[in-house]
Amino acid sequence: MLTVNERSYRPPRQPTVVVCIDGSEPDYFAQAVAAGRMPWLKRTLAEGTGLVADCVVPSFTNPNNLSIVTGAPPSVHGICGNYLYDTASNAEVMMNDPKWLRAPTLLAALAEAGHKVAVVTAKDKLRRLLGHGMKGICFSSEKANEATVAENGISEVLKLVGMPVPDVYSAELSEFVFAAGVQLMRTHRPHVMYLSTTDYIQHKHAPGTPGANDFYAMMDRYLGQLDDMGCVVALTADHGMNAKVGMDGQPDVIYLQDWFDARIGAGKARVILPITDPYVVHHGALGSFATVYLPPVSAVAQLVEELARLRGMEAVLTREEAARRFELPADRIGDLVCVSERFTVIGTSHSRHDLSGLDAPLRSHGGISEQRVPLVVNRKLTGIDPNRRWRNFDTFDLVLNHVE
Amino acid sequence: MLTVNERSYRPPRQPTVVVCIDGSEPDYFAQAVAAGRMPWLKRTLAEGTGLVADCVVPSFTNPNNLSIVTGAPPSVHGICGNYLYDTASNAEVMMNDPKWLRAPTLLAALAEAGHKVAVVTAKDKLRRLLGHGMKGICFSSEKANEATVAENGISEVLKLVGMPVPDVYSAELSEFVFAAGVQLMRTHRPHVMYLSTTDYIQHKHAPGTPGANDFYAMMDRYLGQLDDMGCVVALTADHGMNAKVGMDGQPDVIYLQDWFDARIGAGKARVILPITDPYVVHHGALGSFATVYLPPVSAVAQLVEELARLRGMEAVLTREEAARRFELPADRIGDLVCVSERFTVIGTSHSRHDLSGLDAPLRSHGGISEQRVPLVVNRKLTGIDPNRRWRNFDTFDLVLNHVE
Repeated sequence: MLTVNERSYRPPRQPTVVVCIDGSEPDYFAQAVAAGRMPWLKRTLAEGTGLVADCVVPSFTNPNNLSIVTGAPPSVHGICGNYLYDTASNAEVMMNDPKWLRAPTLLAALAEAGHKVAVVTAKDKLRRLLGHGMKGICFSSEKANEATVAENGISEVLKLVGMPVPDVYSAELSEFVFAAGVQLMRTHRPHVMYLSTTDYIQHKHAPGTPGANDFYAMMDRYLGQLDDMGCVVALTADHGMNAKVGMDGQPDVIYLQDWFDARIGAGKARVILPITDPYVVHHGALGSFATVYLPPVSAVAQLVEELARLRGMEAVLTREEAARRFELPADRIGDLVCVSERFTVIGTSHSRHDLSGLDAPLRSHGGISEQRVPLVVNRKLTGIDPNRRWRNFDTFDLVLNHVE
Repeated sequence: MLTVNERSYRPPRQPTVVVCIDGSEPDYFAQAVAAGRMPWLKRTLAEGTGLVADCVVPSFTNPNNLSIVTGAPPSVHGICGNYLYDTASNAEVMMNDPKWLRAPTLLAALAEAGHKVAVVTAKDKLRRLLGHGMKGICFSSEKANEATVAENGISEVLKLVGMPVPDVYSAELSEFVFAAGVQLMRTHRPHVMYLSTTDYIQHKHAPGTPGANDFYAMMDRYLGQLDDMGCVVALTADHGMNAKVGMDGQPDVIYLQDWFDARIGAGKARVILPITDPYVVHHGALGSFATVYLPPVSAVAQLVEELARLRGMEAVLTREEAARRFELPADRIGDLVCVSERFTVIGTSHSRHDLSGLDAPLRSHGGISEQRVPLVVNRKLTGIDPNRRWRNFDTFDLVLNHVE
């Protein structure tokens, strides 16, 4: 048995693939299956195991991918957003550097124990975190052409996959992940493989629409190929996705920095949007979760009360409350955490959000309303209670410890 | 001033039309406007007033239509479902008979005060409740061909509207309501008109899909015609609508009668689904709200706790808690009220639901997750707080008291 972050895992006895489908609200599966576009998944749900799990809040990419590969919440691994305010350096920075990671990954531990491990991500931003301390193959679609044996454990990826490097804003960026996964399984036969896509399609296309169904049909074909090769295949997601618009079709935004500037003075509070990353054209950096650093003020309870009454606000928590409820590292989340409702997002200042790139009604995530995600395994599982609260970071436990 | 159910209303000074769009989740507007299919609504939201209101829970048709026309919650008007268990007669019955109504409608009071009132509903089941005690025009699309001056205040409706009687399961059943409304406004010029559609389309088509956008584009054309005639036009809804399926595309159902039969003995508890009505082909009588009559048992708190832990259950309340929280008549709602989550519905026994008529993935309502509805008026309103909690049954107050 291998113990990582106080959880024990049996070594893999058959090739095991865990797929994190970025932004995969369970309804994407439901509508695509109902439309006859995912025959493999339909059979898998009938013959294997289909659970709905809760992801980590904030329902963003980095915290959840790291939770899945560490088997632990952000209070353990430290990654609580894509972006944070670093109080030590007084700077706002991307949370892509492994220096923020406070726990080892199961992937690194498996490799260390002698198992062949491969990781493919869509965007390169995740690659360094997921591959931290890991011996094996680890590369991104985005920079597949730059992969070297020294840095990525593999070279000539484009030749292996037979696809050009896709555009960072495309369905093909995720398709490349699957195509690479299938080719890696054919040629390298890793014992454990982790595939992680991007939610470009889900940010634009609602469940059941042609754009979404085409994407899920594409995935279904590749997943079927992995299944045919005898792999244990598990599907989960980093977060769900919802429409975030008012009745006029425009983003329904609480501009929180503007609110604080008007309420306690310009620039006194610092609003951080942990959804922020270098690729924001498709969501304008608007999500349903924000943290706030406050100046020393006496009336925090009063501020919390006023914020909680804002139309579209779901929850306003103090640092301690948020750290406890969402299992977050208290030292990295600011004095307040604000979560907006299903149809509402939080921005900083109106003037700081460029929404000109939005060519479809905004869809986004980050809140409690995007916490439900699929947890599907192509095997019957033994010794589990389907009614307990499952988390997406239980996935490796299920595939390693509960598959016969 | 006219006072009805402790609310005061100014008399109408211009033709005033209130439309209840059955099952109109606000996202239907958002996606249709964004797709350019509702030009009138887009302009109206920019130049008039667009609020999002809370409907009554249970988010069903009868309770909400009656709330809108009485300006009061079900605790006042008594209509708490489409269907109930009548303890007096020990029978389960439709709640379409005016004998269940405990409060007068504003429509009847306006007519009594000498104003010309007209009501058009899609289904006939609502007509008797909405028209109770009212002098004026009141008919349904469903039985438009049977309208007589004696019973409906009008005859020869098909000739007036220029459409045949539509099928009860069709978009045309609602289109007929609008077409009739426009012709009535042209020919009879009522002072107040109430139009109420059916949610056949919303039960089958998600926001933004072609089927939904076509339906909303149709409405937009008729609403523009009413606007052009100088009418004050207000839009609201009886409830929202959500997909209610598991990842396999099949209805995600808690069979509550089966649960009680297994837990406390067959037939000991009586589970009532207030969504039930004679037209259930499109939803199989599956909604997100149920009431339960219990035998004299001591362990109610234990049952509540076990039910609340069921996967997909959002809230389980005792009679008193439910009556207080949802403003319901305590004598008509059973010992327990169960509300399921956004993607889950509640059924009685597996064997009692015929789902063979479902030709699309189930969409339904009844819960707290379908409580948000539009409240749109084609005028700027004066003296209102856009941030307070608005209810759909504030609509007549807004159009009569807050339009200049």
